[in-house]
Amino acid sequence: MDKLLNKINSPADLKGLTNDELNILCREIREFLIDSVSETGGHLASNLGVVELTVALHTVFNVPEDKIIFDVGHQSYVHKLLTGRKELFHTLRQFGGLSGFPKSSESESDAFNTGHSSTSISAALGIARGRDLDGASYNVISVFGDGALTGGMMYEAMNDAGHTKTPLILILNDNAMSISKNVGAVSKHLRKLRSQPAYFRSKQAVESFLKLIPLVGKPAVTLIKHIKRFFRRLVIPTTLFDDLGFRYMGPVDGHNIKSLITCLEYARDEQRPVLLHIQTKKGKGYIPAENNPQKFHGISAFDKTTGQTKSSKETYSSRFGSAMLRLAEANPKVTAITGAMPDGTGLNEFHKRFKNRFFDVGIAEQHGVTLSAGLAKAGYIPVIPLYSSFLQRAYDQTLHDVCLQNLHVVFPIDRAGIVGADGETHQGIYDISYLAHMPNMTILSPASLDQLENMLDFAVNSFNAPIAIRYPRGSAQADGITSGFTLGKAQIISEGTDITIIASGRMVKRAQEVAKIAGKSVEIIALPTIKPMDEAAVISSAMKTGSVITIEDNVKTGGIGSMIATILKENQIECKFKIFAFPDSPVTHGSIDELDKLYGLDAASIASKI
Amino acid sequence: MDKLLNKINSPADLKGLTNDELNILCREIREFLIDSVSETGGHLASNLGVVELTVALHTVFNVPEDKIIFDVGHQSYVHKLLTGRKELFHTLRQFGGLSGFPKSSESESDAFNTGHSSTSISAALGIARGRDLDGASYNVISVFGDGALTGGMMYEAMNDAGHTKTPLILILNDNAMSISKNVGAVSKHLRKLRSQPAYFRSKQAVESFLKLIPLVGKPAVTLIKHIKRFFRRLVIPTTLFDDLGFRYMGPVDGHNIKSLITCLEYARDEQRPVLLHIQTKKGKGYIPAENNPQKFHGISAFDKTTGQTKSSKETYSSRFGSAMLRLAEANPKVTAITGAMPDGTGLNEFHKRFKNRFFDVGIAEQHGVTLSAGLAKAGYIPVIPLYSSFLQRAYDQTLHDVCLQNLHVVFPIDRAGIVGADGETHQGIYDISYLAHMPNMTILSPASLDQLENMLDFAVNSFNAPIAIRYPRGSAQADGITSGFTLGKAQIISEGTDITIIASGRMVKRAQEVAKIAGKSVEIIALPTIKPMDEAAVISSAMKTGSVITIEDNVKTGGIGSMIATILKENQIECKFKIFAFPDSPVTHGSIDELDKLYGLDAASIASKI
Repeated sequence: MDKLLNKINSPADLKGLTNDELNILCREIREFLIDSVSETGGHLASNLGVVELTVALHTVFNVPEDKIIFDVGHQSYVHKLLTGRKELFHTLRQFGGLSGFPKSSESESDAFNTGHSSTSISAALGIARGRDLDGASYNVISVFGDGALTGGMMYEAMNDAGHTKTPLILILNDNAMSISKNVGAVSKHLRKLRSQPAYFRSKQAVESFLKLIPLVGKPAVTLIKHIKRFFRRLVIPTTLFDDLGFRYMGPVDGHNIKSLITCLEYARDEQRPVLLHIQTKKGKGYIPAENNPQKFHGISAFDKTTGQTKSSKETYSSRFGSAMLRLAEANPKVTAITGAMPDGTGLNEFHKRFKNRFFDVGIAEQHGVTLSAGLAKAGYIPVIPLYSSFLQRAYDQTLHDVCLQNLHVVFPIDRAGIVGADGETHQGIYDISYLAHMPNMTILSPASLDQLENMLDFAVNSFNAPIAIRYPRGSAQADGITSGFTLGKAQIISEGTDITIIASGRMVKRAQEVAKIAGKSVEIIALPTIKPMDEAAVISSAMKTGSVITIEDNVKTGGIGSMIATILKENQIECKFKIFAFPDSPVTHGSIDELDKLYGLDAASIASKI
Repeated sequence: MDKLLNKINSPADLKGLTNDELNILCREIREFLIDSVSETGGHLASNLGVVELTVALHTVFNVPEDKIIFDVGHQSYVHKLLTGRKELFHTLRQFGGLSGFPKSSESESDAFNTGHSSTSISAALGIARGRDLDGASYNVISVFGDGALTGGMMYEAMNDAGHTKTPLILILNDNAMSISKNVGAVSKHLRKLRSQPAYFRSKQAVESFLKLIPLVGKPAVTLIKHIKRFFRRLVIPTTLFDDLGFRYMGPVDGHNIKSLITCLEYARDEQRPVLLHIQTKKGKGYIPAENNPQKFHGISAFDKTTGQTKSSKETYSSRFGSAMLRLAEANPKVTAITGAMPDGTGLNEFHKRFKNRFFDVGIAEQHGVTLSAGLAKAGYIPVIPLYSSFLQRAYDQTLHDVCLQNLHVVFPIDRAGIVGADGETHQGIYDISYLAHMPNMTILSPASLDQLENMLDFAVNSFNAPIAIRYPRGSAQADGITSGFTLGKAQIISEGTDITIIASGRMVKRAQEVAKIAGKSVEIIALPTIKPMDEAAVISSAMKTGSVITIEDNVKTGGIGSMIATILKENQIECKFKIFAFPDSPVTHGSIDELDKLYGLDAASIASKI
């Protein structure tokens, strides 16, 4: 039988479908997603959770006229399928292919690019205010998870939106998870809401409501509204969202497409700030993902029958995790803070073993960093591993609360440099530039797993000021590098007379590759310490070879190359000089190798230019 | 008669005082503050509002053992008076004198340094968790205004704190103001709480409570707690803070010292996360400040009888404000966004004239920037003036939401460079370093008021991408500079043959001063455009003079000097080179001239080194 999904080329094709057909379509979409993502890898569990919601959204609303903004955006796969991108789906997250996140450049159906959490209400409110100024009447919808609600921006935006009359529809997709199990008081509050029977909160009530709607016209709807208000006033305690000025509706079963459509129509017709609370199951419809949504949050290609991925080898993240166990065992002052990513950063075991010294703050990097500052003030040693692109959300807290007070907080920066398939919003290529100018900050970068462990030991036990250790995704190591490390000292990896290559972290290996094919006598200097820079080593080698290139996994402006240019220039060292780094333009998705090559940072390209 | 205040040398001296004596002391403190701040300038209105609160805090708690963290921190003057710094108070905010903010280096009574808003709960929670791990029992108190509640970090921290049992005392000092009138749904919620009579919410109830307490011992207190809980369940709708897991108490008259002491004791004894809501009047006890708290928020020296300050001349901020009126008049797409600072940024008149195109988001820079991105997406031209040290709170939103999407958002950066008396937390000396590496970002900097206006015209009407315009506090202008400006073009201000001085913004005038006393033929290049840099002009002048210095109002790392070093080095231009900039260590408070001199950036110091 021909599949329904094959007939859906745009949201318009959904409009005439019966409820049964919509349910069949949802099943087909799930099959498609599992087939496709098991081949390409990607964010599976969150997308399986929003199949009915997305179908209902596109049944009720009309994109691109109506604007749907997906918070974080990795749950936009179904949206992509329904808005004309089904045929390209096999290229997902690959170089030149579909992005794993909404991208306006990819489709006008993607109203706003997202990638980092908790931005969607702000963006939606901005668009809605523009609409109001224009006197237009399209709908603006923000779809976000309960995890996003742990980010403070959401409250800033609700505080701003909730006291106005601007029509705005917020959809809280509550699956009780961020990437891991969700945390915090709001999560508790939602749990309470889910368990409270109340008008428009209980499934039964929604069902009665459903039964009424098709039979009656506009006047009855008004009557129902009055009745509803009466009941609300009588029996319903206010929710957090009511306190913030929103009309709260829910909770609604997020896998019941009929309920969803009715509620969305209702939310649309309210014409004021509304929050619709729906309950979904992350990984819904695929047993391995339902049982382990954390694993299937973002996953590489897998066997769709068993749910198995290839066993992964040791990475910088896992080494960080095991080193933390040893450090915490030995030193009772060691604490760990995570921003909703105990798994991604390697802290799962720490969480189990040192429960009282482990703090998951939610997707709240700002609070996490200042909390760490407080812990340091109280005599503890906070270690707060964050992905490079997420630490940038706590720029001010790092500078203002940690660095200006010169507090001993350890910042392991995971996913520093190119991350690959997640693309421009997740590339960790800015951290050297945004950290190097902070007062009192020290920046390290290992070229091997052993060196990471050595640096972490040093940062925790032999240092007493802000210190960052940046390391890449994966496990790329330089050849034969010792684990040795002395603060502020460069390492001469190989001596040479024709040209000096200065590199750090992942790019030390690249320097070695270049040296092999350059056909010259290359001196390789590794920088385990990026700040403070070993000026003497740089100057001495530049004077010896008369030619310096730098290779870094960071943007050029404000990076290692510009620091070295400054040293050479201020010290009047005359030599040839060239920086190899990423440009300050958005760096797309693709494999790390493809992106290195695209920007001339592969060994062959570099060798050809020296 | 000898003043009571003269006998208070530490909080211990408060402990034996009667209620009447405490009230006399509060009156004396107010007189002292008005006398002193009228001479030195400083934050007056907020400190007048917290006199009773601070006296009550130090009566109930014992610093430095107990930790009090003042959010933002400019309301810590009374705390400084009571913790042994009265004799130094005449040096407030002056070079080498007392800071206008809490500083651990100044006194062990200052538990955590603050300056930016909304950090105090995070810091307090960190300290409280350290205390719990130690098994210690001191109290940790965060004191913040209702303005701080518009910042999302507060919710991140409450979300984290509220689901635990960690004893933590939050004091919400509600004066219905940030610097200006407070905005948003939470503000509305507080208004509702203030108007609701409820147990422990109405003044009468607090009074009855007060009457009971002195008569009874521990068992009766327990009974009262039971009664209170019963009443709460019966009649009190939950507040936002209850939803976030805190025990809400209030509102309490923040100028009734007896009530305050009782409530603080009660909060202390609860031994769980508690929020005490107190109501105060900003500027309390000084009529000019009560009538115009916005003016007396942060004020220069004034006549204490009349409340008059010297009339101020035109500044970059005021010119920005008047230019915005003209631009909004001519172009209906122009909108303005402020982070609770319509006055400080010059937008008061815009607010009055273009009410529907003006958005005050509260102290919520993150949301403000992403809201601007949304407005740009909807076809509007958002102009969001922020102080340099506050824009850094929206680093990620600027990069992730505006720059990666290449949206037309205009960022006027006020107070760029050294700001003077507010000190290290407010110095705007990082913005070039944190913006220059952002994809698609353009950075301008005017050397005169006319040039600012010209640039703003250009940014609003002739540009279509992210653009920042950084300008200093005050009105320092270069001599005889034209208002002319071409994107990406440097301006040769004076021609010379011995040395090239490259400068931008406020430092163009400094370059002119240096040229006058250098005794050499100086070529001055002004950079109205910092990014993209005019490489050709830099190279050509360097080749002509063979000697280049750069002067900038920013830290050295990642600043203009490092960009020019990179250009010269990569282009093999051999010349002498030196960067004059601020070091990446905290820059203290003092006058702009004093700080320039301290770091060798005054004309004489620079001239002596070339």
